[in-house]
Amino acid sequence: MPDEGVTPRSTDYGRWYLDVIREAELADYGPVRGTMIIRPYGYAIWENIQQALDRRFKETGHQNAYFPLFIPHSFIQKEKQHVEGFAPELALVTVGGGKELDEPLVVRPTSETIINHMFTQWIKSYRDLPMLLNQWANVVRWEMRTRPFLRTLEFLWQEGHTAHATYQEAEAEAMLMVNVYRDFAETDAAVPVIAGRKSRLETFAGAVHSYTIEAMMGDMRALQSGTSHNLGDNFARAFGTQFLGENNELHFISQTSWGLSTRFVGAVIMVHGDDKGLALPPKLAPTQVIIVPIWRTEGERTGVLNAAGRLHQQLTTAGIRASIDSTDQRTPGWKFNFWEMKGVPIRIEIGPRDIEKGTVVLARRDKPGREGKTMGIAWDAAGERAAAMLAEVQTSLLARARAFLSSNIHDVTGYKELQEVIAAGGWARGWWAGEDDDELRVKEDTGATIRCLPFDQPGGAGPCLMTGKPAGEVAVFAKAY
Amino acid sequence: MPDEGVTPRSTDYGRWYLDVIREAELADYGPVRGTMIIRPYGYAIWENIQQALDRRFKETGHQNAYFPLFIPHSFIQKEKQHVEGFAPELALVTVGGGKELDEPLVVRPTSETIINHMFTQWIKSYRDLPMLLNQWANVVRWEMRTRPFLRTLEFLWQEGHTAHATYQEAEAEAMLMVNVYRDFAETDAAVPVIAGRKSRLETFAGAVHSYTIEAMMGDMRALQSGTSHNLGDNFARAFGTQFLGENNELHFISQTSWGLSTRFVGAVIMVHGDDKGLALPPKLAPTQVIIVPIWRTEGERTGVLNAAGRLHQQLTTAGIRASIDSTDQRTPGWKFNFWEMKGVPIRIEIGPRDIEKGTVVLARRDKPGREGKTMGIAWDAAGERAAAMLAEVQTSLLARARAFLSSNIHDVTGYKELQEVIAAGGWARGWWAGEDDDELRVKEDTGATIRCLPFDQPGGAGPCLMTGKPAGEVAVFAKAY
Repeated sequence: MPDEGVTPRSTDYGRWYLDVIREAELADYGPVRGTMIIRPYGYAIWENIQQALDRRFKETGHQNAYFPLFIPHSFIQKEKQHVEGFAPELALVTVGGGKELDEPLVVRPTSETIINHMFTQWIKSYRDLPMLLNQWANVVRWEMRTRPFLRTLEFLWQEGHTAHATYQEAEAEAMLMVNVYRDFAETDAAVPVIAGRKSRLETFAGAVHSYTIEAMMGDMRALQSGTSHNLGDNFARAFGTQFLGENNELHFISQTSWGLSTRFVGAVIMVHGDDKGLALPPKLAPTQVIIVPIWRTEGERTGVLNAAGRLHQQLTTAGIRASIDSTDQRTPGWKFNFWEMKGVPIRIEIGPRDIEKGTVVLARRDKPGREGKTMGIAWDAAGERAAAMLAEVQTSLLARARAFLSSNIHDVTGYKELQEVIAAGGWARGWWAGEDDDELRVKEDTGATIRCLPFDQPGGAGPCLMTGKPAGEVAVFAKAY
Repeated sequence: MPDEGVTPRSTDYGRWYLDVIREAELADYGPVRGTMIIRPYGYAIWENIQQALDRRFKETGHQNAYFPLFIPHSFIQKEKQHVEGFAPELALVTVGGGKELDEPLVVRPTSETIINHMFTQWIKSYRDLPMLLNQWANVVRWEMRTRPFLRTLEFLWQEGHTAHATYQEAEAEAMLMVNVYRDFAETDAAVPVIAGRKSRLETFAGAVHSYTIEAMMGDMRALQSGTSHNLGDNFARAFGTQFLGENNELHFISQTSWGLSTRFVGAVIMVHGDDKGLALPPKLAPTQVIIVPIWRTEGERTGVLNAAGRLHQQLTTAGIRASIDSTDQRTPGWKFNFWEMKGVPIRIEIGPRDIEKGTVVLARRDKPGREGKTMGIAWDAAGERAAAMLAEVQTSLLARARAFLSSNIHDVTGYKELQEVIAAGGWARGWWAGEDDDELRVKEDTGATIRCLPFDQPGGAGPCLMTGKPAGEVAVFAKAY
């Protein structure tokens, strides 16, 4: 409960994060190590994320389907890189219905293999392509170090899986979807991201290219927030997924996969939250406006609650997700703190003096104290003003996070400079033409990894910060969750 | 593909069912025995079911949450009846991250136990009650005889879990939710149901009372289509889930759980389908209106496709889910069959003569041939007429299914009569005051079980059909899926 408050971010960012999750009732720990319960308030944020993404997936021609949780163990082993990537993280079902199974079943860590098995049956001719599927599902990865939302033994996500006639089409699809993620992150979550290509070392197990959106958390660490992979024909060759082309010859299909998970809730917490708790972007906020009626006497109570009810009606009609906190077991001050902890973008205060004047007070979550308060708004105008203010909060959260991101990315020209930037907690950006070994050395020395080779490049060329060799693109380095 | 058609229902109902699932592309078999892939068309029906239910759950004050897939094995064993019911059907994870686990993990068959574990932590005082949760999730039961949608190793469902201060409140909640299911089934799915209480033998493992909605499939077999349980304090006692009452004393909470699954897609198929394939109730149909443009020459093609496009726009604006089948790789006749197989409620035909006259033809899926066709509908009126016709189809499917249900339930006064009704494939309804043993004898002799003791009772009393003892209520017997 908010009485306890949260550890200040500056004191201990990791504790702050866990405190906010507890106090805002977003999640709780499950009885099995590394598992998590997503509580109603956290789940409502996830539902809004789901809706924002699902709409975009359908607009870009994808259909939802559902594939089984259990995958035969032999499937995982068909694609060489894939098995190397996932074998250490598997959960295995070995007993079913009281009997030892002949072949253990893998609890899906991701569904490329089982989907390829089905693609092989469904795709016969070029007329069956492209096949553009998505599924909303739970997946399991046996992670050792877990943290709510960011890394859990089981998590919820969507995984898109598409099949195409050519490598070029798969490449275009993979690029399309990473841009869908970028648009969602910036437009709905007010989370600015650096979108780009993963280095070879960081490419998904089984992919030709992996694309990513990388967000900067409040402690400046990076969070990989969504990825999109061009799988080429790697899985098609492993599973024999071929189609008869217009030329009447057999070809391997080209594929993509792309996913965004409940981890994104962690990004929302860490990008926008402050010492008062959560601060939610209006488009994802389960409650966008909380109305807090204020009264002292029983006589005042009725008038104030009536006015609050009418206001609630007005906001709801305007399409705003609004609630009234009318309990008399808590003081207004307690309620202010509580709903600030919950990150509700706007609070409306309505008391006896407001009733006399026919006005209300609007308070923005993103601006503290008096600065965020607008007094004397006429009742009739409250819906319109609240809608406009929600749009302002959405824009202002994005602008603030964008300023934080760009002021903490530093251009570096040499390795020493990179080390200094990383040691100070920032992100380093510089020309890069290094090998895998060079990249590993950066990780060993500094703890930072190449987050991506951004799509947004300066142009031209320059000397690799590590090797001095001519480089055609810059890479972004950071420590990451 | 619909070229193959489906086995007539009268020839082999079981094969007809599987043929429809294949030809309408609703589902496919997974590589692990008993698992199923829900294909996009089947999943779109499930999404419409989800929306219809989720809206009702939220309107009745429930919130969604998400609980872990993995449950410690010891949890399942805490509630005596529960473990007896579920132990034979469990899938166990024994290896995680390459290591043998100390305690096997159960892949959830249902979530009462893990949710009780959390209730015990979250519920401290009467102020925390009622707690009204729901989750959309996958569950696993190691079934031996499986059939797509009806009984699969893994299935998708929602499971509601609520905690209350008193037994009476839990009872009211369990009743509320079985009535929510009934309302959904009849209003949205056009599936009439008999709602009632389960016999003691058929009560959920761990419940005090189980309530059910029972639907009659096209072969007259019953399908349990949704259940709601008053768990009393059985789980609370097993898990020690207590709260401090207003009287400052500790009390066990009372609970409910209720679920409806992808099995319901099977009900929709079997209640409405015919020898031409699926027939979907408009409220659940992914595509409500299919527009089939008809042309012979290239000159006709342009005009017809333009008109089809305008019509599509008109329907979409009217809130109708409409599509155009404009491929030139198939004939209009092939398309008619295809969309009938898919169960689309209304087809709009638009050809060169319609262009001349400024009219279209509307054809209803639920009425074959000329009877279902309405010619000469003016373009401007098509949206309105289609909307009205969708409402008619919805009503007519329900009425037809309701007539089928009531004409196949027979009142019986003695056991011989019951046996005859069941042998003829019907449902039998009669006064019942039998013991568990009597009920088991019916099952052994006839294959039928008590589907429920309906809420809708004739009133009064009569002699038990089996024992002759005075009975205060009637039971409904049927063979079931």
